[in-house]
Amino acid sequence: MIVLFTDFGLAGPYTGQMKAVLQHLAPAIPVIDLFADAPTRAPKPSAYLLAAYAGWFPARTVFLAVVDPGVGGARAPLILEADGRWYVGPDNGLFEIVQRRAQAARSWEITWQPESLAPSFHGRDLFAPVAARLALGQAPPGRERPPDTGRQASWPDDLPEIVYIDHYGNAVTGLRAALLPEQAALRTPKGHTIARARTFSEVPAGGALWYENANGLAEIAVNLGRADAALGLAIGAPLTIAG
Amino acid sequence: MIVLFTDFGLAGPYTGQMKAVLQHLAPAIPVIDLFADAPTRAPKPSAYLLAAYAGWFPARTVFLAVVDPGVGGARAPLILEADGRWYVGPDNGLFEIVQRRAQAARSWEITWQPESLAPSFHGRDLFAPVAARLALGQAPPGRERPPDTGRQASWPDDLPEIVYIDHYGNAVTGLRAALLPEQAALRTPKGHTIARARTFSEVPAGGALWYENANGLAEIAVNLGRADAALGLAIGAPLTIAG
Amino acid sequence: MIVLFTDFGLAGPYTGQMKAVLQHLAPAIPVIDLFADAPTRAPKPSAYLLAAYAGWFPARTVFLAVVDPGVGGARAPLILEADGRWYVGPDNGLFEIVQRRAQAARSWEITWQPESLAPSFHGRDLFAPVAARLALGQAPPGRERPPDTGRQASWPDDLPEIVYIDHYGNAVTGLRAALLPEQAALRTPKGHTIARARTFSEVPAGGALWYENANGLAEIAVNLGRADAALGLAIGAPLTIAG
Repeated sequence: MIVLFTDFGLAGPYTGQMKAVLQHLAPAIPVIDLFADAPTRAPKPSAYLLAAYAGWFPARTVFLAVVDPGVGGARAPLILEADGRWYVGPDNGLFEIVQRRAQAARSWEITWQPESLAPSFHGRDLFAPVAARLALGQAPPGRERPPDTGRQASWPDDLPEIVYIDHYGNAVTGLRAALLPEQAALRTPKGHTIARARTFSEVPAGGALWYENANGLAEIAVNLGRADAALGLAIGAPLTIAG
Repeated sequence: MIVLFTDFGLAGPYTGQMKAVLQHLAPAIPVIDLFADAPTRAPKPSAYLLAAYAGWFPARTVFLAVVDPGVGGARAPLILEADGRWYVGPDNGLFEIVQRRAQAARSWEITWQPESLAPSFHGRDLFAPVAARLALGQAPPGRERPPDTGRQASWPDDLPEIVYIDHYGNAVTGLRAALLPEQAALRTPKGHTIARARTFSEVPAGGALWYENANGLAEIAVNLGRADAALGLAIGAPLTIAG
Repeated sequence: MIVLFTDFGLAGPYTGQMKAVLQHLAPAIPVIDLFADAPTRAPKPSAYLLAAYAGWFPARTVFLAVVDPGVGGARAPLILEADGRWYVGPDNGLFEIVQRRAQAARSWEITWQPESLAPSFHGRDLFAPVAARLALGQAPPGRERPPDTGRQASWPDDLPEIVYIDHYGNAVTGLRAALLPEQAALRTPKGHTIARARTFSEVPAGGALWYENANGLAEIAVNLGRADAALGLAIGAPLTIAG
């Protein structure tokens, strides 16, 4: 299975062209859209989102992950194998958290080059063909790197920030809920202090809560309302952990 | 065929994760996205929308329908068979209108339980696996209910409200056009009285009309314009039928 | 392969119902979403967008292309074969630029009629079944037309306007980059003069550039910013070519 994780947006031709490449090269491999709206041009919050959601997928899944503001510039093209899953995308930190949490990981700088490579669309011309090869069981078309190449040592293990706002206005954090104290509250930049609950209906309509979402992240919500609007939250908003 | 009808929004990981489950359990069954933007957290208008669109699909279609503000709370998980089509989702009225219009219907409370069930995402962990089983021809994994369990007797047969706004700004009502008098006009909350036409180009540019849409509902539009903006219409706006 | 190019929007049931038809009639044919957000009700800019993106796809691709403000009115339903690719949609200029740039082209007015045809949704009831037939290798179900029928002779070969704004705020023009002088600058309605670069990172953060996008069109962007907001650009904004 190939899973797409990008900041391409839902609109426009980018995802469709990548899928056309995958269809051409690996027609029998199913393709799943996971995120087309990862934090725009922001590899750091995207890295925490990807790490949380990737773990739900089975071994041998190939993640075609493109959040790549430096496309066409100097950053290297990368393949990471971590705990049996594969990741293909730019070497800009996007895979840092996956790699850090992995029990076993190897990485390769992609050396294969396509016949034609648009400077602004490596997703279509470079990363998608490589993802197709990996999904077909072929060897990584690159040069293996020393384990510590290109790491982001300064990034924290968990990110106390909002990393995603969903359709309901729920605000996903970069914090793994299982690592937070049971009684921990989350404090927002506007001074709201939010307690934990198991699910929405445990608080009254309009009440705020945080809960462990279906992929293990702490997520802030308002029952039957929008947390982003009610609490003034957006991607990048910093949180403090209280209690 | 499995058809998705949700209020998950187009963005984010929810639809993708459900599709990954379906792909895993029923890889040969095609999956169609019908609505990912049914009225948010609103089972009542969603019920009229679902009933109008479901009838277009062939027998044995499985609708995986999730508009579920009470997820993780007390509402039961449900399977409905109605006129040969299957519906899987929460027991909160979402299937009321389908059931009411059906010539034959049976329903089951789902008793099967997954190994792991996220309180906030029954769509992925409970409803999708059940939809996959039904699509594969397996028996409903639940306990059949008496025919009148969990009904919404107070809801009208047709809903004189806006239930959906589309990309063009057209406003779909919960009224079946075939049941309206040929000369009926629709009156909006802001006092516009709108006459019937067959299609857009029968009125001048900027003119309002209502017409029978491609799934049998009365729909309000403005030729080459946006009815929602021009007429002040949003989901939930009440209509009166004149003439 | 069937490729979808529409202004249906991402939301709502339209694309899903077309895909259900394609799945029913041509289950083994892959379907790719290219644009669901072509310029709304605007066949002219859509025609330049389609021509630029279609050429990337292989021969025998079938484009199901619906930007059709006159649906249900007098415009004819059309099949175009151009350089080995097939196009199905309304005869309103949408295929003009594809045809003009083709080395060889033939067109047919569709004469086949479905059993049931909703006046507002020829995409589902008429164009999708015809696209399925063509994808299966069947003959065009229509009457061949003289080569010059229904042409838009007054439209320019390249359109010096913005024809699309993408998720990043990049503004795509209807100008083929390869036909512009190497030193050409693009002047916007608000008086910005924008020079060419190869890719985003060649200008400082916040700087504007135009570049040849991955499908050959001149595209205006702001490195790590939004060109639409920074430069006041929207679909239809006219450009002049300087230098």
